Amino acid sequence: MDIQEFFQLSAGKWFSQRTSHHLAFKQAETGKSDIKIELLSQDAPEVIHLCEQHSINPALAWGGVRVTWEGMMEGDTKKQVGSSVLVPIADAEHPHQGQVLRDGLAQKAKVAGRFVIGNDDVLTLITETETVYTEERLWFASPNLRLRTSLVKRADGFSMASFFSEIRMGVTQASAKAANAANA
Amino acid sequence: MDIQEFFQLSAGKWFSQRTSHHLAFKQAETGKSDIKIELLSQDAPEVIHLCEQHSINPALAWGGVRVTWEGMMEGDTKKQVGSSVLVPIADAEHPHQGQVLRDGLAQKAKVAGRFVIGNDDVLTLITETETVYTEERLWFASPNLRLRTSLVKRADGFSMASFFSEIRMGVTQASAKAANAANA
Repeated sequence: MDIQEFFQLSAGKWFSQRTSHHLAFKQAETGKSDIKIELLSQDAPEVIHLCEQHSINPALAWGGVRVTWEGMMEGDTKKQVGSSVLVPIADAEHPHQGQVLRDGLAQKAKVAGRFVIGNDDVLTLITETETVYTEERLWFASPNLRLRTSLVKRADGFSMASFFSEIRMGVTQASAKAANAANA
Repeated sequence: MDIQEFFQLSAGKWFSQRTSHHLAFKQAETGKSDIKIELLSQDAPEVIHLCEQHSINPALAWGGVRVTWEGMMEGDTKKQVGSSVLVPIADAEHPHQGQVLRDGLAQKAKVAGRFVIGNDDVLTLITETETVYTEERLWFASPNLRLRTSLVKRADGFSMASFFSEIRMGVTQASAKAANAANA
């Protein structure tokens, strides 16, 4: 599987169950959220903008995705909402790895990470800022069940390991349209 | 990393935090357990016995591991204890995959599964019986932090996705000895 195929399979609406293990406190917290993943074509303004921010020729991108979430952690009363745009730029010689341009994260307006897809079709995303190292792993158990883990490391070591099981709730019209455009 | 190295890194005592997502009910439950993983050498009686049960020449095994656990799910009063022996037999031509012989599982006295180690050092273990398909993924975030997921599928589809974050608590004497023997 390549990165484009991975994101195409990800397009749609997902119900996501999340658990975070706080490694130092040995405590867990759970939450649920609705996630929408829309494919963005190469000429989408968000894709072009993100490429330009990173001084990358937008022609190198096949497009990207917009991820939107709305959820709540157990025992919380405040909804967590947000969205982020991801644009992968595969390395020319090793297309199973490359850069991931990302916006919409709270920490920084402009973040570049790395992706690798293993021969087991597990996608690893690594994002590093001055203070936080994040390693995410994502894979499909089936076309309608996506699993995801996220590991956060700060200056004092690994702080949190999270697990998401995501069940497909349907394909949005917008993402189906974008998928068609991207495939055209 | 090969399967032997993976198990050697796994030897020791671990504190394991577990969360299971019930996919149909959209509910989660958490638990904690202590896990001990001991290396078994090629001439350990358990290894020879398991090989013989599967009509496999014990000389093809480098050894195996005994996993012992003792834990409790949140809200439960009954301890879950058990142990299992795993003996991987790598394929001669593709050493990054092969069979995994297993005993000690409640369902059957004798189970053989498959393992694959991806180029991302993620170990996938697949066990299939007449009624249950189980896919486990394990990897090291660091030598002292092991992550593990487990996905269970029954006749009516995927039923449970579990996540384990495991923190090394120390190396047992027995496993250190076995590790030395295995490395000798």
